[in-house]
Amino acid sequence: MKYRSRKMVKGEDLNGAGNLFGGKALAWIDEEAAIYAFCQLGSRNLVTKAMSSINFNAPAKMGDIIEIGCAVVRLGKSSITVKCSMRNKSTQHEIITVEEIVFVNLDDQGRPLAHGITEIKNSD
Amino acid sequence: MKYRSRKMVKGEDLNGAGNLFGGKALAWIDEEAAIYAFCQLGSRNLVTKAMSSINFNAPAKMGDIIEIGCAVVRLGKSSITVKCSMRNKSTQHEIITVEEIVFVNLDDQGRPLAHGITEIKNSD
Amino acid sequence: MKYRSRKMVKGEDLNGAGNLFGGKALAWIDEEAAIYAFCQLGSRNLVTKAMSSINFNAPAKMGDIIEIGCAVVRLGKSSITVKCSMRNKSTQHEIITVEEIVFVNLDDQGRPLAHGITEIKNSD
Amino acid sequence: MKYRSRKMVKGEDLNGAGNLFGGKALAWIDEEAAIYAFCQLGSRNLVTKAMSSINFNAPAKMGDIIEIGCAVVRLGKSSITVKCSMRNKSTQHEIITVEEIVFVNLDDQGRPLAHGITEIKNSD
Amino acid sequence: MKYRSRKMVKGEDLNGAGNLFGGKALAWIDEEAAIYAFCQLGSRNLVTKAMSSINFNAPAKMGDIIEIGCAVVRLGKSSITVKCSMRNKSTQHEIITVEEIVFVNLDDQGRPLAHGITEIKNSD
Amino acid sequence: MKYRSRKMVKGEDLNGAGNLFGGKALAWIDEEAAIYAFCQLGSRNLVTKAMSSINFNAPAKMGDIIEIGCAVVRLGKSSITVKCSMRNKSTQHEIITVEEIVFVNLDDQGRPLAHGITEIKNSD
Repeated sequence: MKYRSRKMVKGEDLNGAGNLFGGKALAWIDEEAAIYAFCQLGSRNLVTKAMSSINFNAPAKMGDIIEIGCAVVRLGKSSITVKCSMRNKSTQHEIITVEEIVFVNLDDQGRPLAHGITEIKNSD
Repeated sequence: MKYRSRKMVKGEDLNGAGNLFGGKALAWIDEEAAIYAFCQLGSRNLVTKAMSSINFNAPAKMGDIIEIGCAVVRLGKSSITVKCSMRNKSTQHEIITVEEIVFVNLDDQGRPLAHGITEIKNSD
Repeated sequence: MKYRSRKMVKGEDLNGAGNLFGGKALAWIDEEAAIYAFCQLGSRNLVTKAMSSINFNAPAKMGDIIEIGCAVVRLGKSSITVKCSMRNKSTQHEIITVEEIVFVNLDDQGRPLAHGITEIKNSD
Repeated sequence: MKYRSRKMVKGEDLNGAGNLFGGKALAWIDEEAAIYAFCQLGSRNLVTKAMSSINFNAPAKMGDIIEIGCAVVRLGKSSITVKCSMRNKSTQHEIITVEEIVFVNLDDQGRPLAHGITEIKNSD
Repeated sequence: MKYRSRKMVKGEDLNGAGNLFGGKALAWIDEEAAIYAFCQLGSRNLVTKAMSSINFNAPAKMGDIIEIGCAVVRLGKSSITVKCSMRNKSTQHEIITVEEIVFVNLDDQGRPLAHGITEIKNSD
Repeated sequence: MKYRSRKMVKGEDLNGAGNLFGGKALAWIDEEAAIYAFCQLGSRNLVTKAMSSINFNAPAKMGDIIEIGCAVVRLGKSSITVKCSMRNKSTQHEIITVEEIVFVNLDDQGRPLAHGITEIKNSD
C-alpha cells in the first residue's frame, strides 16, 4: 500500500474531547478512497456502495500528521473494491483501517455500467 | 428506532458530483451515535472502537432533509454497541445504515472501565 | 416542546474564548427551525422572515452535548411561526431561546402563497 | 453607521435552496458585532446577552458581495448595546438588520463588571 | 490603506500548534482582495492571476482580532493590482503583507477584457 | 517533484463564481508544504516565514481531482525552503505554483534554532 494524502490535525478537526473527531477521519478516508477509485477507473460517475467493518485503533491529537493510503482489493465488472488505511506519519501507528470500500460505476440513468478496466495502475 | 437529529443538505455538504458527500454522511452518523452512547452511559470518556459494515443505499441531494436514528444493540461491561440509520425525512428512504458501532468507556489511563449501566434509557 | 436534534460542541464550534461561538448556536437554531417548518408545511419554498428577540442564558463548552427543540406558535395563511430552544442535554439548562421565528411560504415569483395547513403535526 | 467587514457568498454559505443560509448570515452578524463591541470596550471578557428582533429583508445569492456595519446604541455600566446591519454591497439593499445586540463585560467569576467606557470611538 | 474586514481567530482557524493557520490567513487575504477588486471595477468576471511574495511577520492567537486592508497599486487595461495587509487590531502589529495581487477581468470566453476603469474609488 | 496529497473540489471549496476558491487552494498548498517541511526536519516547531510570488495558471472546477507536490529547494541552518505545485490529476495541467515557501525552525522562545538536517529525505 502506498501512502499519499497527508493531513495535519487542526482546530477544525477536533471532537469534544480535543482529539481527532472520528467522523472527520471517516470523511478523509472516504474522499481518499473515492479519488483513488476515480484514478483507477478514469471515470467520474462512481458512487460509494458499501464499506466493510472499520477498526479505530488509536486516537490522533492536535498537530499530528496523518497519512492515508489505498490499494485495489478487487476489480469487478462495474465495481472496484479499495482498501484504505490511515496512520500517524511520525510513529507509523495505524489509526483506522477499512478492509473494503466498494464503488460502483454508473451510467446516466444510475444503473451499473461496465468500466472495462482489468488492470491496476500502480502509479496511481 | 427513534429518529432525532435532522440536517438539511447544504452547499458545504456536497461532493464533486453535487450530491451529499458520503464522508459528510459518515461524520454525521458518527457524531449522532457518539452522542447517543454518551446519553445512555452518562459518561464522556467514550471512544469509537469499531463500526460494522456500512451500506450506502441511496444518494441525497441539495435541499434534502435527513434524519438520523440510533438504538442500543448491546450493553457490554465497558462497552456499548449502537445501531444507526440515516434516512430521507420526506420519502422515508434509507440512505445509510450501520448495524453496529462499538464505543468503549475508558478510565484516565485509557484502559476499558466498567460503566455499570445495564438498562437502556428509551427516553434518550 | 420536543427536543430532537443534537450536537456535540467540537473544535470547529469555538469562539475566541474557547466557548461555543454564539453565531454557530444561532445557525444551528435557524437550521433546526427551518427543517421543522418544512416538515410541518410539506413545502420547500419557505424563507425566514423574522426572529423575535433572543436570550443567551448560558454558555456552552467544548464537549457539551446540546439539544434543540421546536414547537409551532402560530399557523398563518402563508406563514408559520415556530418557537425554538437550545439546552444542555446533561444539565437541562437552557442556553438560548427564540420565542418566535417566522417563515413564509412563497410561490415561484417569490410572493406569499397560502400553504393550506391548519393543523400541527405533533409527530414532526 | 459605517460598513466595514465584507464577505463574498461562496459554496460553503449556501442553504438547501442555493441562497445564502440564514444561519450563516446570523453567525456573520454575531461575529462582527462582537468584534465591534470588543474594539469599543477594549475588553475580551464580553459575552452576548441578548438580541432584539431580527428582520430578514432580502435573500443573497452565490457570488453576492455583502457588507456589515455596526453602531453603538447605548453604553451601560457593564454592558454595550450595538446595532448591526448587513446589506448587498452592489445594490445597497438591506439583507438583515438587528436593532440591538447586548454584550456584557464579565469579571473572572463571570459576574458583570463595570467597563468604565463612556464615550464611543467613532474610528472603530 | 484603509482597514475594513475584521475576523476573530476562532477554533476553526487554528493550525496544529494552536495558532492562526497560515493557509486560513491567506484565504482571508485572497477573499478580501478579490472583493476589493470587484468593488473597484464593478465587475464579477475577475480571476486572481498572481500574487507577489508574501511575508509572515507575526503569528496570531486564538481570540485575536484581525483586520485586513487593501489599496490599489495599479490599474491596467484589463487588470487591477491590489496591495493587501493583515494586522492585529489591538496591537497594530502587521501579521502578513502581500505587495501585489493581480486580478484580470475576463470576457465570456475567458479572454482578458478591458475594464474601462481609470480612477480609483477611495470610498470602496 | 513527487505529487502526494489529493483533494476533490467539493461544494465547500467553491468561490462565488462556482470555481475552486483561490484562497482555499492557497490553504491547501500551505498545509501540504508545512507537512512536507515537518517530515523533512522531524520538527514540529516550524513557522511559515515567507512565500515567493505565486502564479494562478488555470481554474479548477467542481468535481476536479487535484494533486499537490513538494520538493526541497534549499536547506538553511534553521530554515527549509520548499517548492510546491498543485495540478489537475486528470489533465496534468498546473493550477498554481509557488517557487519558494520558507519555514523556520524555532526554539521555545520563538528564536531560530538550527535543525541540524543537511540531507533531503526523498522518501518523504
